[in-house]
Amino acid sequence: MTKSVLALLLCLPPMALAGPHAIVIHGGAGTILRDHMSAEVEAEYRRTLTKAVTAGHQVLAGGGNSSDAVIQAVLILEDSPLFNAGRGAVFTNAGQVELDASIMRGDDLNAGAVTGVKRVRSPILLAEQVMLNSPHVMLMGSGAESFAAAQKLEMVDNDYFHTKRRRDQLQQAIAREQNVSIPVPNDAYEVRKFSTVGAVALDANGTIAAATSTGGMTNKRYGRIGDSPIIGAGTYADNSACGISATGHGEYFIRAAVAYDICARVKYQGIDLAAASEAVINGTLQAMGGSGGVIGIDPAGEVVYSFNTPGMYRASIDTSGQLDVRIFRER
Amino acid sequence: MTKSVLALLLCLPPMALAGPHAIVIHGGAGTILRDHMSAEVEAEYRRTLTKAVTAGHQVLAGGGNSSDAVIQAVLILEDSPLFNAGRGAVFTNAGQVELDASIMRGDDLNAGAVTGVKRVRSPILLAEQVMLNSPHVMLMGSGAESFAAAQKLEMVDNDYFHTKRRRDQLQQAIAREQNVSIPVPNDAYEVRKFSTVGAVALDANGTIAAATSTGGMTNKRYGRIGDSPIIGAGTYADNSACGISATGHGEYFIRAAVAYDICARVKYQGIDLAAASEAVINGTLQAMGGSGGVIGIDPAGEVVYSFNTPGMYRASIDTSGQLDVRIFRER
Repeated sequence: MTKSVLALLLCLPPMALAGPHAIVIHGGAGTILRDHMSAEVEAEYRRTLTKAVTAGHQVLAGGGNSSDAVIQAVLILEDSPLFNAGRGAVFTNAGQVELDASIMRGDDLNAGAVTGVKRVRSPILLAEQVMLNSPHVMLMGSGAESFAAAQKLEMVDNDYFHTKRRRDQLQQAIAREQNVSIPVPNDAYEVRKFSTVGAVALDANGTIAAATSTGGMTNKRYGRIGDSPIIGAGTYADNSACGISATGHGEYFIRAAVAYDICARVKYQGIDLAAASEAVINGTLQAMGGSGGVIGIDPAGEVVYSFNTPGMYRASIDTSGQLDVRIFRER
Repeated sequence: MTKSVLALLLCLPPMALAGPHAIVIHGGAGTILRDHMSAEVEAEYRRTLTKAVTAGHQVLAGGGNSSDAVIQAVLILEDSPLFNAGRGAVFTNAGQVELDASIMRGDDLNAGAVTGVKRVRSPILLAEQVMLNSPHVMLMGSGAESFAAAQKLEMVDNDYFHTKRRRDQLQQAIAREQNVSIPVPNDAYEVRKFSTVGAVALDANGTIAAATSTGGMTNKRYGRIGDSPIIGAGTYADNSACGISATGHGEYFIRAAVAYDICARVKYQGIDLAAASEAVINGTLQAMGGSGGVIGIDPAGEVVYSFNTPGMYRASIDTSGQLDVRIFRER
């Protein structure tokens, strides 16, 4: 029996039967320490995280679906130069920005992902188009850009994504490789981290969606693909288990199939999402030497943060509407 | 206690304690029906499958490791124009061949994968180099080719991979898209199938390795990436659970994280590999509308074939040394 028929029988408006909704986001995990961060920079991160999680939550509160909610949150993180996604993404060895993103929804397990995109303003909107309007799940490089153009997405020059801070980071990375010492710029933002962004939401219809967007690793070369665009590694959503978005040293997340493994433990071991996430992030992944973390939501709207690094940029609005914004291990 | 110390204590040569070894390969799954296949073509497939599985088994029998065994088997399948991998791979919409491959080993969960490669003679050898000699797991396109050149792998013109049969298939596919009827060539090989190739082996040290190589889908465009180069979807290996190589409609295999899901069910549900494979291929995947199959090996060397299509090119040499070569559902 559908919910609306049931509502009719009970003489209640259908909305009264709507389930809980909640959203959680991340802006990357890593060596994020209070000692290294000025109050001003911290406030800037908290402001942007709050803005993003609130934008996603408004979609849910208005009866919108979880895919639209995670996209609205990720769009704000992509547009902010604070995070390694969209504008402000890290540089490749060749001095370009190459972006990856993926999205998945847990009702029909549909998904979309793109990798190595240089000219599409919003990689997450392109991943959404792949999910909605192509028979494929994953597209790469110039082919993905041709698809973006066919879908009338906004195209930009690669310069649009460039920031001085990230170019300085590339020069530092190249100098380290060559064992050359160059002056470290006085950059209050510079911390060792994997600042991929992501969001996971549960909507009132019980559908979970997860989305991830990134610029990958500073100084990457050889067309390296990390976990963010890999369904099962960086992103997964299944209404029967959980939704996950990951951030970290992508190679380990691929090898451990992190996002799917957490959902598999929930499904097959019957443990809760918090226990499953901890078992993977502070168990399997830690033992392999992989740094990073995940955010997740279960079908009841329970929100989880799990990471094995000193900090993770993260925020959530839970099923009671409570806003939580955190950066360091404790808060 | 190491095996060799134990062997010394028991006054036995170390070889006497070596574990079982076995190998299984596939050449794709699909609508492969005896009625559509001449005796000559069938014999040709059986000959090549036998040659490939035997080459892999010889590595194991000589004390070699499972990674080398799966590579030797896949090299023969890549070089044969019968299969959609390496020479004889299908054409993209742009009239090119773009190849994907991946390999993983189950002792340390190391892995390598490449996608969208046009000029590397053996994609599986490139995936191996990514696994062994790079800090990355996955490389794409021209970047992956630069890495191949740096590793001194054999480079070829894209023409090397081209066959008339596959060009005819592309013309058919384009005509179908345009609702134009063109004469179907009299091609005894033409059957609707996903003829990715793969191999999974267990060596005497108890290490499982899995490898997959493919040309993807005929008429693919927009830089489409299927499941074959995705660790967790087309390929997975974990000594504590199983090794898997998949073939089929890749988008479904990515969304269901097929290779990893089978290993997860073995690990977390405590069921055997045959039951786990059937639950995924004839359960989850079938329910989603996904066609294809997998081959697998468990830590005891038990070999599994599982598919939801009328046929799958497949062969194995089990722990007793018994050769098995099959094409259709029954044999």
